[in-house]
Amino acid sequence: MDMNVPTRTLDFDHAKFPPLRNTLLLDSVQGRPLSRFPVWAMRQAGRYLEEFKASREGVPFFDFCHMPEKCCEVTLQPIRRFDFDASIIFSDIIVLPQVMGMEVELLPKVGPSFTTPLETEADLDGLVTELGDSLDKVYDAIFLTRHRLNGVVPLIGFTGGPWTLATYMIEGSSPGKCTKTKQWVFQRPDAFRRLIDMLAELIATHLANQITAGAQLVQVFESNLGELASEEFEEFILPALLRIAESVKQKHPSVPTAIFPRGCHFCFEALAKSKFDVISVDWTHQLKDVRARVGEQVTLQGNLEPCALYGPDELIRARTEKMLAQAGSTRHIANLGWGMLPDHDPEKLQVFVEAVHAFEIK
Amino acid sequence: MDMNVPTRTLDFDHAKFPPLRNTLLLDSVQGRPLSRFPVWAMRQAGRYLEEFKASREGVPFFDFCHMPEKCCEVTLQPIRRFDFDASIIFSDIIVLPQVMGMEVELLPKVGPSFTTPLETEADLDGLVTELGDSLDKVYDAIFLTRHRLNGVVPLIGFTGGPWTLATYMIEGSSPGKCTKTKQWVFQRPDAFRRLIDMLAELIATHLANQITAGAQLVQVFESNLGELASEEFEEFILPALLRIAESVKQKHPSVPTAIFPRGCHFCFEALAKSKFDVISVDWTHQLKDVRARVGEQVTLQGNLEPCALYGPDELIRARTEKMLAQAGSTRHIANLGWGMLPDHDPEKLQVFVEAVHAFEIK
Repeated sequence: MDMNVPTRTLDFDHAKFPPLRNTLLLDSVQGRPLSRFPVWAMRQAGRYLEEFKASREGVPFFDFCHMPEKCCEVTLQPIRRFDFDASIIFSDIIVLPQVMGMEVELLPKVGPSFTTPLETEADLDGLVTELGDSLDKVYDAIFLTRHRLNGVVPLIGFTGGPWTLATYMIEGSSPGKCTKTKQWVFQRPDAFRRLIDMLAELIATHLANQITAGAQLVQVFESNLGELASEEFEEFILPALLRIAESVKQKHPSVPTAIFPRGCHFCFEALAKSKFDVISVDWTHQLKDVRARVGEQVTLQGNLEPCALYGPDELIRARTEKMLAQAGSTRHIANLGWGMLPDHDPEKLQVFVEAVHAFEIK
Repeated sequence: MDMNVPTRTLDFDHAKFPPLRNTLLLDSVQGRPLSRFPVWAMRQAGRYLEEFKASREGVPFFDFCHMPEKCCEVTLQPIRRFDFDASIIFSDIIVLPQVMGMEVELLPKVGPSFTTPLETEADLDGLVTELGDSLDKVYDAIFLTRHRLNGVVPLIGFTGGPWTLATYMIEGSSPGKCTKTKQWVFQRPDAFRRLIDMLAELIATHLANQITAGAQLVQVFESNLGELASEEFEEFILPALLRIAESVKQKHPSVPTAIFPRGCHFCFEALAKSKFDVISVDWTHQLKDVRARVGEQVTLQGNLEPCALYGPDELIRARTEKMLAQAGSTRHIANLGWGMLPDHDPEKLQVFVEAVHAFEIK
């Protein structure tokens, strides 16, 4: 570690981190007046950046996630390139299932894949339900990055949500229609609830630990929610999400929390009543419609169609302006509606960032 | 062909088909009073039925779609088993891209896959844009099935929608995030519009031909719409869908048309103003919410979560009752919110059908 970076401890005083010099993100969440909207991009540390691919080269993906210097480096790369108002720690949602004892391999053309997906309730008995020190390197990465950022922008931590992690653990890889997971839901609801409860507790702990290590906002990625009917969302997943938000808020009342319920078009009202401070909106929604449904107390984040970055600069600017014209004057964080893609051109992301900067809040 | 089945001609008088004895489906679309809701199931002819697998065995899938006797047989199988109020011709959305000259293979674990997906605008020049007699066997299957059904229930024809077909033709197989298709949308909008226009014209012709051959309702399956932002839906796809509905209605004013816009939560108002008579609703919606958005003139179809059929009988009954309690007194067709799955148990579908039958319209 750096000579300039102190040692991470569980009672490290956050006041000792370098003072935050860009408060746009936190101002927006607090509903304070903004000179302009804060902006960052989901998966801003990713394969669309040459320097990211260079850093990743030769290191197995899941080792990489436990190498603080490397995670810090790729987290900082987009901050050096773009005038972002937030960084997000490089990690992966898969680290939690790994801690629980599930073995992952990276299959070509398939992506992360569990060698032995969950099949029966008995498989739950073998899962580890305590984090112990298994994610210490992730927290070291956050601690180190918070120092290295030197207050230029705040640092975001994250995790997968309980439904999203459960679908990966049961389907084995890319979840698609989630039909195996739904067999649990409809045939073994008690076992499924047990799995969700296990995940929710680990998720809440992992988020709180990330905050202790230095994260200044934490986000839950529920990227597969679009497969769920409202009945099952309300019965199994919403209560878990509410508990996660409450648990984190109880431990860290001053740190904002965000939820990305991708594809779940019916959940906004319920999530607006939760302890989540920020709802990240996918690209299929018009912000004004979502705002009308959630009221004024929650912060919205998003939601440019990521593939609009394939388009010409004028289109990116026009779409960004259209989006921000619906965003009110505060409690909005400009972002994409989902993550950057490997074949995106960084120049196009720059056009988006500049369009957000140029937008005048009325 | 049957001795009892006359020869299909392009001016065959539909009055010569056996008279329809179950008018529930058409009554519902006309908004007439119903003794009970009509019911059928998307992909009711499918691998969940042993007799279907037996019929399919040893015949290459894409040959099968052009074998009228076999298509008729598997169309009739679910009608023999269940007390359905409609049959739907066995075919595949892939037949249209095949007619256009695209070669398809069935890959294990991947499904239908185009050997040479569309890559550049020049690839459009090579596409066939006239149906000619290439789908005559599909129409023969409809004509034959309409006779064999002998008026027991009406016969539905179908096709894929322009977006869904375009995504398969560009992505090559299971479209996922549709990122290659969106590169066309954002980088080559004129070429993409040209492709959509070609598809829309073929789709409209194919639907009209199915009606001429005997189909009593036709449905457009737009199963991948959930990936589209409203801007691109409104610019590229909605106009094509409106034209399709108008074209079919102009040729066959008395035959109802249906659209299944899966995943597209924002399109109901626009589609309710179209010439489509029926909107098929996916399982993520509550029917009362959709009804409030579309008014009283359009018929809704759906929308039980297909995976609820994994559950116990009581759950299937309760969910079906909850669904139908939101369905008003007419202009509703009970169905699943998407298709039957290969690992579904036919007994559970029976529970659903009986629950619809048992439901008393107030």
